[in-house]
Amino acid sequence: MSLLVVGSVALDSVETPFGQKEEVLGGSATFFSTAASFFNPVHLVAVVGEDFPEAHVQFLQSKGIGLEGLTREKGRTFRWKGKYGYQLNEAQTLDTQLNVFQSFAPKLPEAYRDAPFVFLGNIHPELQSQVLDQVKRPQLVAADTMNFWIQGTREALLKTLQRVNLLFVNDAEARQLSGEHNIVKAARAILTMGPTRIVIKRGEYGALLFEREHIFACPAMPLEEVFDPTGAGDTFAGGFMGTLATAAQPDRDALRRAMVMGSVMASFTVERFSLDRLRDLTRPEIHQRFSEFKRLTHFEELGSLKG
Amino acid sequence: MSLLVVGSVALDSVETPFGQKEEVLGGSATFFSTAASFFNPVHLVAVVGEDFPEAHVQFLQSKGIGLEGLTREKGRTFRWKGKYGYQLNEAQTLDTQLNVFQSFAPKLPEAYRDAPFVFLGNIHPELQSQVLDQVKRPQLVAADTMNFWIQGTREALLKTLQRVNLLFVNDAEARQLSGEHNIVKAARAILTMGPTRIVIKRGEYGALLFEREHIFACPAMPLEEVFDPTGAGDTFAGGFMGTLATAAQPDRDALRRAMVMGSVMASFTVERFSLDRLRDLTRPEIHQRFSEFKRLTHFEELGSLKG
Repeated sequence: MSLLVVGSVALDSVETPFGQKEEVLGGSATFFSTAASFFNPVHLVAVVGEDFPEAHVQFLQSKGIGLEGLTREKGRTFRWKGKYGYQLNEAQTLDTQLNVFQSFAPKLPEAYRDAPFVFLGNIHPELQSQVLDQVKRPQLVAADTMNFWIQGTREALLKTLQRVNLLFVNDAEARQLSGEHNIVKAARAILTMGPTRIVIKRGEYGALLFEREHIFACPAMPLEEVFDPTGAGDTFAGGFMGTLATAAQPDRDALRRAMVMGSVMASFTVERFSLDRLRDLTRPEIHQRFSEFKRLTHFEELGSLKG
Repeated sequence: MSLLVVGSVALDSVETPFGQKEEVLGGSATFFSTAASFFNPVHLVAVVGEDFPEAHVQFLQSKGIGLEGLTREKGRTFRWKGKYGYQLNEAQTLDTQLNVFQSFAPKLPEAYRDAPFVFLGNIHPELQSQVLDQVKRPQLVAADTMNFWIQGTREALLKTLQRVNLLFVNDAEARQLSGEHNIVKAARAILTMGPTRIVIKRGEYGALLFEREHIFACPAMPLEEVFDPTGAGDTFAGGFMGTLATAAQPDRDALRRAMVMGSVMASFTVERFSLDRLRDLTRPEIHQRFSEFKRLTHFEELGSLKG
């Protein structure tokens, strides 16, 4: 069933301890849709400027991503510039130029309004609500957000959350949104705000899925080489939603497999700059890493202990 | 098969955001042996002062812990005073009084020298070596250490590590010992120093077990109430070693179950001050939480994905 994503398409300049890249393909919706495209049809709604390289459009097309909702506006494409230290856990933003993204008012092509699965990328919560005004009867609405919106547009965000089934946040965002330091209390508090499921991303420590009655803990794949963490969270969400959209029912088993597939896709993304690792990634590689997650986490039930 | 532990028995004064306690039972060997006693016979070698309350000795006895190697010396018992903030991840040490622990020279009772399983608690690496000089042909030697020894007595520690099969460290210690920031590289480097297995403890994020060819990731139980993290790492090691000692072979399955049981025991310990939660803990509660870890981490293999 088709999956709609609304978010940013950007040109990123990134510096890590292992090198730097200028104006490479980036943006939350780009990472999300590329990751999701391995599993399920994706429709992308975003805006780019006149300077956005045609090669990037062709790349997205090559992944089978629906681009009817990718509009090209007068002006320059959204740019983000960031730097990572050896910790690699958090980016230091050096520069943000919203450019055409500043006046982004997502308008869904008629064909996209039936999308059963919707992912609201990390944009102004009022724009997220405007997207939901345009979709008919989505089966599952997921959203991402960030500290900037939690602090600056809290009321609008709380309104949007009422219409969201599944929220992706990292631990700092969960704490900020809930006012609770303990992560379990934070998740329980957010579960009263609208979403019935919360995914808390914890970078190299993995991710937690909270439902009302259950918690699922998924580790991150321990990697010897982490090259560029940009887009890891968006790729996680893309792998998650792409996998979930293929399930007959978004039940507990499907959600857990989606968590693992999110971690699988994120683990590939960080191996190279930008989306480079996803360009030549194959389905057998994806399936193999999924199996590695099984080996990474599997343990036998207790037999009878002595005594 | 019996399990020998050498380490500290202390009186702790602890302050957390949830309360404070003066001179309660503490020490690495205390937490370790109490946790391990739920699974396997334990023999404790440590020193206390004349002021060590008889009630604590009786408590250890009530757990069936062998105390032939617990000597009482002239002077005061080792004291540690620490404080935790809301992060609860790292203690701020306010005061350390080694007292009788300063001249601790572990001497094993004759009956303990045959111990097949040995745990060297976090003491001077030369003392750890002296313990190994006294045991006959241990099947498995595990050790703990800390930043103080890694920095101050590196040569002695490297010598001891040559005789250690399994090392317990936290991530900061692994990085310090190896000189590698990446945790996988850090573990691989330590695997060249002697141990064939490394357990890297990551507090609320769980623990990783590294073997030459395999990694196992075990989450921590997400807890709504973390009251006092003191002793969590030692309890982890105690649950781990106690469980491993009951296994027919310390093979991969046994090691993984030991990791989970370590996490189970640590998750109980932090629920109350000192060892209080372990005092009335029952085996059914332990088994139930082990099952909760299975539910927390289990996911189904991939069926055939669409496409």
